[in-house]
Amino acid sequence: MNPAKTDARRHHDPEVRGFASDNYAGVHPEVLAALALANGGHQVAYGEDDYTEGLQRVVRSHFGAGAEAFPVFNGTGANVVALQAVTDRWGAVICAESAHINVDEGGAPERMGGLKLLTVPTPDGKLTPELIDRQAYGWEDEHRAMPQVVSITQSTELGTLYTPEEIRAICEHAHAHGMRVHLDGSRIANAAASLDVPMRTFTNAVGVDILSLGGTKNGAMFGEAVVVLDQDAVRKMKHIRKMSMQLASKMRFVSVQLEALLAKDLWLRNARHANAMAQRLAEGVRAVHGAEILYPVQANGVFAKLPHDVSERLQKRFRFYFWDETEGVVRWMCSFDTTEDDVDAFLAALKEEMAR
Amino acid sequence: MNPAKTDARRHHDPEVRGFASDNYAGVHPEVLAALALANGGHQVAYGEDDYTEGLQRVVRSHFGAGAEAFPVFNGTGANVVALQAVTDRWGAVICAESAHINVDEGGAPERMGGLKLLTVPTPDGKLTPELIDRQAYGWEDEHRAMPQVVSITQSTELGTLYTPEEIRAICEHAHAHGMRVHLDGSRIANAAASLDVPMRTFTNAVGVDILSLGGTKNGAMFGEAVVVLDQDAVRKMKHIRKMSMQLASKMRFVSVQLEALLAKDLWLRNARHANAMAQRLAEGVRAVHGAEILYPVQANGVFAKLPHDVSERLQKRFRFYFWDETEGVVRWMCSFDTTEDDVDAFLAALKEEMAR
Amino acid sequence: MNPAKTDARRHHDPEVRGFASDNYAGVHPEVLAALALANGGHQVAYGEDDYTEGLQRVVRSHFGAGAEAFPVFNGTGANVVALQAVTDRWGAVICAESAHINVDEGGAPERMGGLKLLTVPTPDGKLTPELIDRQAYGWEDEHRAMPQVVSITQSTELGTLYTPEEIRAICEHAHAHGMRVHLDGSRIANAAASLDVPMRTFTNAVGVDILSLGGTKNGAMFGEAVVVLDQDAVRKMKHIRKMSMQLASKMRFVSVQLEALLAKDLWLRNARHANAMAQRLAEGVRAVHGAEILYPVQANGVFAKLPHDVSERLQKRFRFYFWDETEGVVRWMCSFDTTEDDVDAFLAALKEEMAR
Amino acid sequence: MNPAKTDARRHHDPEVRGFASDNYAGVHPEVLAALALANGGHQVAYGEDDYTEGLQRVVRSHFGAGAEAFPVFNGTGANVVALQAVTDRWGAVICAESAHINVDEGGAPERMGGLKLLTVPTPDGKLTPELIDRQAYGWEDEHRAMPQVVSITQSTELGTLYTPEEIRAICEHAHAHGMRVHLDGSRIANAAASLDVPMRTFTNAVGVDILSLGGTKNGAMFGEAVVVLDQDAVRKMKHIRKMSMQLASKMRFVSVQLEALLAKDLWLRNARHANAMAQRLAEGVRAVHGAEILYPVQANGVFAKLPHDVSERLQKRFRFYFWDETEGVVRWMCSFDTTEDDVDAFLAALKEEMAR
Repeated sequence: MNPAKTDARRHHDPEVRGFASDNYAGVHPEVLAALALANGGHQVAYGEDDYTEGLQRVVRSHFGAGAEAFPVFNGTGANVVALQAVTDRWGAVICAESAHINVDEGGAPERMGGLKLLTVPTPDGKLTPELIDRQAYGWEDEHRAMPQVVSITQSTELGTLYTPEEIRAICEHAHAHGMRVHLDGSRIANAAASLDVPMRTFTNAVGVDILSLGGTKNGAMFGEAVVVLDQDAVRKMKHIRKMSMQLASKMRFVSVQLEALLAKDLWLRNARHANAMAQRLAEGVRAVHGAEILYPVQANGVFAKLPHDVSERLQKRFRFYFWDETEGVVRWMCSFDTTEDDVDAFLAALKEEMAR
Repeated sequence: MNPAKTDARRHHDPEVRGFASDNYAGVHPEVLAALALANGGHQVAYGEDDYTEGLQRVVRSHFGAGAEAFPVFNGTGANVVALQAVTDRWGAVICAESAHINVDEGGAPERMGGLKLLTVPTPDGKLTPELIDRQAYGWEDEHRAMPQVVSITQSTELGTLYTPEEIRAICEHAHAHGMRVHLDGSRIANAAASLDVPMRTFTNAVGVDILSLGGTKNGAMFGEAVVVLDQDAVRKMKHIRKMSMQLASKMRFVSVQLEALLAKDLWLRNARHANAMAQRLAEGVRAVHGAEILYPVQANGVFAKLPHDVSERLQKRFRFYFWDETEGVVRWMCSFDTTEDDVDAFLAALKEEMAR
Repeated sequence: MNPAKTDARRHHDPEVRGFASDNYAGVHPEVLAALALANGGHQVAYGEDDYTEGLQRVVRSHFGAGAEAFPVFNGTGANVVALQAVTDRWGAVICAESAHINVDEGGAPERMGGLKLLTVPTPDGKLTPELIDRQAYGWEDEHRAMPQVVSITQSTELGTLYTPEEIRAICEHAHAHGMRVHLDGSRIANAAASLDVPMRTFTNAVGVDILSLGGTKNGAMFGEAVVVLDQDAVRKMKHIRKMSMQLASKMRFVSVQLEALLAKDLWLRNARHANAMAQRLAEGVRAVHGAEILYPVQANGVFAKLPHDVSERLQKRFRFYFWDETEGVVRWMCSFDTTEDDVDAFLAALKEEMAR
Repeated sequence: MNPAKTDARRHHDPEVRGFASDNYAGVHPEVLAALALANGGHQVAYGEDDYTEGLQRVVRSHFGAGAEAFPVFNGTGANVVALQAVTDRWGAVICAESAHINVDEGGAPERMGGLKLLTVPTPDGKLTPELIDRQAYGWEDEHRAMPQVVSITQSTELGTLYTPEEIRAICEHAHAHGMRVHLDGSRIANAAASLDVPMRTFTNAVGVDILSLGGTKNGAMFGEAVVVLDQDAVRKMKHIRKMSMQLASKMRFVSVQLEALLAKDLWLRNARHANAMAQRLAEGVRAVHGAEILYPVQANGVFAKLPHDVSERLQKRFRFYFWDETEGVVRWMCSFDTTEDDVDAFLAALKEEMAR
């Protein structure tokens, strides 16, 4: 593509990066190239195209022959579609209080899916069978929304990780109670990279039934997929996706992005890089007196506690968010395009601001 | 972009085109170039980026200083967001029985928005004040879902057009009853091209309150915008968009596509071309004995009645859909990338099959 | 009960009756007596009481051993609970355009149940397999809300009746397409009385899967029941009822009313009487020049066309409603407490007003 | 009414009472008498009757000239109607984790109202401004369901009470943030009786905007009312009630019950009696070694901790529920018909079982 040949104008400086979110990054060049590859000619709309078929092959190579991908637009859409798919009208969802579905989706699960979330406080964003049991009861009690699915996030919203065995324990516990397990894999690539195992090792291999597979934070322009891992868990996925406003007409352009990421190792390269940058950042921060790292840094996010004035001054130099402003907690996210220089410059700035 | 540099593979023949849908087409090269232009560096997620700001300027140049665009993913999303924005919990929507929101959105308005649709049969997909009056009553009657908005489609699902004056009459009628007017502009560009007037001439200039502005069918990869034309008609659009799962994280890539289309005249070039191809097709069909054109061909769609066996044989050569199979009605859509050769080859095939 | 022993005051004249609605009537004395009978002592709340168990026996005596009743508060509640019970999240309901669920429930099916209604115009409020087919298609098409249930009303909102064979044909047709059949029996007693058959003859005997069994219009104070006729058609009825806000805490007082109606023949006596009064009324009206009866008078409602001024003058003497004011159509309903004198007085008034 | 004159049969022993729930009790005789009083003749359906008008006068005598009552069927219905009335589509509700709307309504607020509940753990079922602040933030953040109403329960689900000043502080805090305050007054009479103040003293006098006024637990057969205290807080209440399936056709029979309770002092007599029985019970329990009262006994509920085997044996003699079985917590509720003998017999049984 020749950027000159468009009526749109460049409005931004493509050299400026920060640590605000892995959604602030753009598109990996190989994904952009894939979009061009899929262009031209006509392809059947709404998912009957050759690229969506291609994606199925790739997804099966990762998750086994029983897996089926349903491309959607965004993470909220993936989660609400997936959760509706494994609940009846009367079903409820057990999740961590800190889960994205609970705190960051504008109430979409409740409003659009009619889903009650049964939340549990956790120390680190991770559920356990014991924590699940605080909400896992009363299936026969009509006065209670019926717990039908446990939703976990991997890597979690706090940058922490479940081991495959931890997820297996959750799945066994949930299944023993007749509940399904959904994994919000908005950052599943970061988890696989950090655990250094295939994605299936901590999903269908240990009992996860349905998965929100993230593309956007992994270097795509947009696009996620609901991946059904146990076909017995769901019915009429296409209807649920459509009625949830998540059916792309020109779906080839969602599918080809996911294919570009997943066909070989781009998904892993991107995730490993982001994780490595987070490690580099965390190590640097640990060396700074007065800055405290809050959770184990296991994926691409770093949570730290800083003096409030330091954070504010630092925010004028690099974009990032307070996670809990009253507690002085900030979040720094690394992405596929974060450079070592970005990290080092940020650490230098942090040291300067701490020294003032 | 270098298509070689991706792990994705080309799965399709970029030279094959049909007449099934304007969603079968790919992306206009200038839009693809704009996507590359917007890439690189970090931009604030969720709509606070420079491209979304740029889009606002472009949208205001089309619809005036009071207009505000809220980019979303797809047409169903745009419609459900827009209709929720102009209704209360108890509100209902008056629309043509043939409206896309009624027949083609999987019940999303009802399921996701809780919206009752009050439908009216029409001869040509177009409402009139008289037709609206079949459902416009009972505002004080709690037994009836309250009509709060009239939704029209321009160009309609049947390829027909409202004149600006017809829309003005609808808006005056609706407003006189305290109702708002929504225009589903999935193909608004085709309408403007055919009427040869600016889009505002048949939207806010005549009273339309809120608009679903289509990008996908006009040459974008994905992306539409809810355009608020009367700010008094709405509140908290961002919350409605988010809870409706239509908030793109990397929104710059939605906005820049719409900017590429709307900044100068790409939107119009694409629409004019598609319309011209539909005219060429219709003229050719009219010359074929036994084929009947069903509605005025005013945009990029052609509806025809053919012997069933002819349609079936023709479908083996070119992709298109039955619109009403029992009535022998087929729909042929032209898009920005339909060529004169495509049309002529199709007409030749039609003649051959009619002659068999 | 001694009416003197209450802080409430009598506000109305218990001798005044009209023809506005069978909901304007009060409670049959035998039902009131039953309420007193069930009072006193403690009974388990929420349906585990002895009266609800007693009601099950009575309901099984009417509908067979497989039937199960779920008492609810009102007709809208019964319908929305029943329709949710036989649809998935993606399901839609085929019904007559004139169905109560479509025109008279404030959009509750859509808003509360997320149900899309696929409506069909009918000449007399009655569906047929042919009419159903106008909406019965596209089960595999995710762009369309999936038709999963046909809802019919017996007697209809227009005072007409299905024969058992007509309902059998509808059920066979619906079942052949994998759809369930719901019968809105808000006035089922009037239908049974008029057809002179047991209720089961035109419900489960001919294939109806689920039933809204009316009590209120039959002489109860309040209370209906969703009666499940095919247990395979439903799951978790209690959860659906509860989440639909239709679970009575002191359920014994709903159940005992229905028991009082259904245990012996009170339901039938009340219905026969109301029907007979409607016949008397209709015969009288037919003898009045200038008044036209519009539909077959088969239950307790009479629809007539009158000069508008006559209707207006008559409304000052007896309460009743316009059904379609622009067409000059009025509706007169008879109830269990309508007397021959009421009818005769009304007819005399009609004649007077017609003669002015 | 002559109980002999009904086809229904008495199925229960009217002398048996327990401590399971104030919903296990029947109807106060004066309420039953009022129902008979309101019977006979025709009254306009759906709330335009004379009894509903009479109720308005009575409600205004309690809550002032600006108050308006909307009778509904049950508590869940009252709460979901009231909460919808003071929220937009994007609104959320701050409430105690132990709130009935959160734990005991089958997810109706989420499923039917689309309402996200933002819950806060409390020591005693009572919110405070500080506790509210744990969820009261982010009004401009579209990623978060917008807190628009604080819902408190008086008396609480744990049998505790807010003082009027505590509610005033909550209301001032909520209003300062632009939020409304809903009071779930399922047991409001018990609260007023215990505080020995008029109901308005801790509702509109201190800023409560909307109220679920309980009738059922106070001696009615069924029936509650949403009482609007600030008319500016709501719109189209009748539409919301209808679409929420809470509109009674023969509404006179809901209204007259509430009138019977509220017209003079029946509401207060019933509540005072129930409260006194709870005090008698609590005092007796405190004298039993090994039984521990858990919360201040301020209304008609007593929560106690007992050895599990004692509870189980005691349950065979008197009906009551475990509140938290794993913690050994039981709940005993007194109602308007609990007698001193009931309490004494229960205490004797408790002592016996503790001694075994």
